Amino acid sequence: MKVGKILFIVLDGLGDIQYGSLGGLTPLEYAKTPNMDLLATEGSCGLLDPLKPGLPPGSDSAHLSLFGYNYLTEYPGRGPFEAIGYGFKLKEGDIAFRTNFASVEPKNGTFIVTDRRAGRISGEDAEELGNVVSTIKEIDGVKITYYHTIEHRGFLILTGDGLSHEVTDTDPHDTNAPVLKCVPWDNAVNKAGAVKTANIINKFLKEVYRLLKDHPINKKRKNEGKFPANIVLPRGAGTKTNFEPFEKRWGLKPAVIAAGPLYKGVALELGFDLIDVPGITGMPNTNLRGKFSYALKNLDKYDFLFVHIKAVDYYSHKKDLDGKVSILEKIDKELPGIINAYRDGATVLITGDHTTPCKYGHHSGHPVPILIAGPNVRHDYVKKFGETFCANGALHRLRGNDLMPLLLSYVGLAQEYGLRSSPKERIFIPRDEWIPFKL
Amino acid sequence: MKVGKILFIVLDGLGDIQYGSLGGLTPLEYAKTPNMDLLATEGSCGLLDPLKPGLPPGSDSAHLSLFGYNYLTEYPGRGPFEAIGYGFKLKEGDIAFRTNFASVEPKNGTFIVTDRRAGRISGEDAEELGNVVSTIKEIDGVKITYYHTIEHRGFLILTGDGLSHEVTDTDPHDTNAPVLKCVPWDNAVNKAGAVKTANIINKFLKEVYRLLKDHPINKKRKNEGKFPANIVLPRGAGTKTNFEPFEKRWGLKPAVIAAGPLYKGVALELGFDLIDVPGITGMPNTNLRGKFSYALKNLDKYDFLFVHIKAVDYYSHKKDLDGKVSILEKIDKELPGIINAYRDGATVLITGDHTTPCKYGHHSGHPVPILIAGPNVRHDYVKKFGETFCANGALHRLRGNDLMPLLLSYVGLAQEYGLRSSPKERIFIPRDEWIPFKL
Repeated sequence: MKVGKILFIVLDGLGDIQYGSLGGLTPLEYAKTPNMDLLATEGSCGLLDPLKPGLPPGSDSAHLSLFGYNYLTEYPGRGPFEAIGYGFKLKEGDIAFRTNFASVEPKNGTFIVTDRRAGRISGEDAEELGNVVSTIKEIDGVKITYYHTIEHRGFLILTGDGLSHEVTDTDPHDTNAPVLKCVPWDNAVNKAGAVKTANIINKFLKEVYRLLKDHPINKKRKNEGKFPANIVLPRGAGTKTNFEPFEKRWGLKPAVIAAGPLYKGVALELGFDLIDVPGITGMPNTNLRGKFSYALKNLDKYDFLFVHIKAVDYYSHKKDLDGKVSILEKIDKELPGIINAYRDGATVLITGDHTTPCKYGHHSGHPVPILIAGPNVRHDYVKKFGETFCANGALHRLRGNDLMPLLLSYVGLAQEYGLRSSPKERIFIPRDEWIPFKL
Repeated sequence: MKVGKILFIVLDGLGDIQYGSLGGLTPLEYAKTPNMDLLATEGSCGLLDPLKPGLPPGSDSAHLSLFGYNYLTEYPGRGPFEAIGYGFKLKEGDIAFRTNFASVEPKNGTFIVTDRRAGRISGEDAEELGNVVSTIKEIDGVKITYYHTIEHRGFLILTGDGLSHEVTDTDPHDTNAPVLKCVPWDNAVNKAGAVKTANIINKFLKEVYRLLKDHPINKKRKNEGKFPANIVLPRGAGTKTNFEPFEKRWGLKPAVIAAGPLYKGVALELGFDLIDVPGITGMPNTNLRGKFSYALKNLDKYDFLFVHIKAVDYYSHKKDLDGKVSILEKIDKELPGIINAYRDGATVLITGDHTTPCKYGHHSGHPVPILIAGPNVRHDYVKKFGETFCANGALHRLRGNDLMPLLLSYVGLAQEYGLRSSPKERIFIPRDEWIPFKL
């Protein structure tokens, strides 16, 4: 029996809008998904705003919110998660930035961004230029650690005394726009630290440009009509955080099955165990069958199995409607084991971390569809999994932070409010932290 | 005419889940309730999270929330409500605890809980042992007041200077678990007071055990194979609160008809008048007809009539599906007077304070069904009162704190936001508190 076990399946970028070419349906509505439809029929459906209505989540803040962490007070910024995702251990006082390789042209003493991703530079070009930037080891006595990750992406860590994450982005998030000077936030608490940090970032920009502007790779790229990667733009400053572990917060022993570094990173930061599955890639060619079979194999050992599938978002960002429909059908075909676990008493949740309309090619603030099926979940009248169908479901419209309390109720582990002496909505003290009364 | 009058009917523990033995319906869906169905048909239905999605309310926090009080900032803890329910007037500085008689066995210098309710001790055994515990009158210069109420339940008041409610529970809320040492909260504001209070509670535990462990009643119980009541476990510490009166907050003159001490207690604390009805018991044998007829008789005198019926929850806690169905049908039969008042212009609300699935036998975080019918309430397409039917209703999914503002709008008494100079959503100043301008 799998009673009390939770399968938490996130199809990245699942939500979408309706298209005339799909007969006025969304990709999920159009796709043939008999297994998801069975769960939708026997369970409760609804719409979910991962953060709040209309606010497009990043994948990191979305997952934090789905796991019951407050995106406003507990989210450390994008920088730290980029570093965490690649296994970099931040230390107390470190400042982490997400970075992009970008293409700029000097103009009137400023830089104008001609491409925010340096033509989506990748492969050896990106690797070699990354190595050049990594030669910057110190500025003003502060240690500089730059890592190139994949394509135009990377992260930057400042290590030193008296720094602050309270600084602005250098990336204008637009083209034909100037690179922005890094300055302290108006409301910075550690003003001196923010001034120091901003100065270092501005010097880093100058130094990177000096190293890259005439680099042979960039000369070659220009000759080939490609955008040069002649600057690195830091943004999303943040610090090391100390999350309350998921198991302590919710009393459930969690594990993650994911290939994408960001998703693994978030889960590992929250204390999830990582289950390695051969052949998973975070791409459409991933080992879907393996993901689900490893999840099911581990249901005895864990209470909460988080399975993340990135491929849906891959097609959404590529604006590939047919690809999105076909990967959803492919995923559905691999769900019979999940259906069996549900029949055996497990509670199954399927949702997305955000909507990525194929029409946009980027995250939007539309809600995502959600279904929850389990032995103690009321069924409603929704017969098919899809955005519009779910709008008529019994879950109505929830927020990301509602999910964990709801799931605890569904598996009978929720605590009655007020029974315990605490101002908190929920307290869970692991047995090994109990203080026994002594005679 | 009853226009502007509100009948607020709470069926305790109303919500449930669906059962195969009821043809896939919940007890409320299965029950024949033509009168509730008439109100559902002519009014608006929906689902209600008394506190928030997934959080199982206690009966006290649930009612506070339904009456428009914030469960996080205005809830004083379970202890005070236990005392209030039994007519004990807390004074400023008093610390109140809810208590259980429990059964413990000493082991390696600690106590192990063998039963959290001392085998649901009751009758003379409980009364006599309660009297023994009541002989503890003082510890460390602080006055001790212990009251046994019914069965294993009781409350404990500490009266003295420099105490604090910021202390943990001694009850582990589990069996084969150690009695927990009472310690200050990590984030206690009055740390010294919390240390003092915790010490007194720990001494109280020792003293109770000394008095009870070899008491003849416990010896007799052991011989009979029953659990001894050899300790009293305090939990849910809280202080006297000063609620803004309901009438001041909402501008409605309120009265309560309830038998259960906790429900009367909450209403009395908020300034409700108590309407005595002969023969009401808080049990299935209660005088249902009397409750409704006294409510209707008092509609001229009051604006807001709160009628509480406990019997539904009684069967839910007993896991008695048939009993729950039959009490719902019995209640429905007594509603014709309420229907008449509705025809005469009154606004009628029927809901529960929480879901108690018969399958669980305890409170859960599933939402409860709600209906509101009145001359200014839109009707929707729901034809029958029940959890799944209500999920398609026009009220959608509300929270407890939404009800009072909605009801004010339905009776035409809501204030337009911003018309008055105040940061509050609503201000109501009774005429006798108006300060006239003087020349």
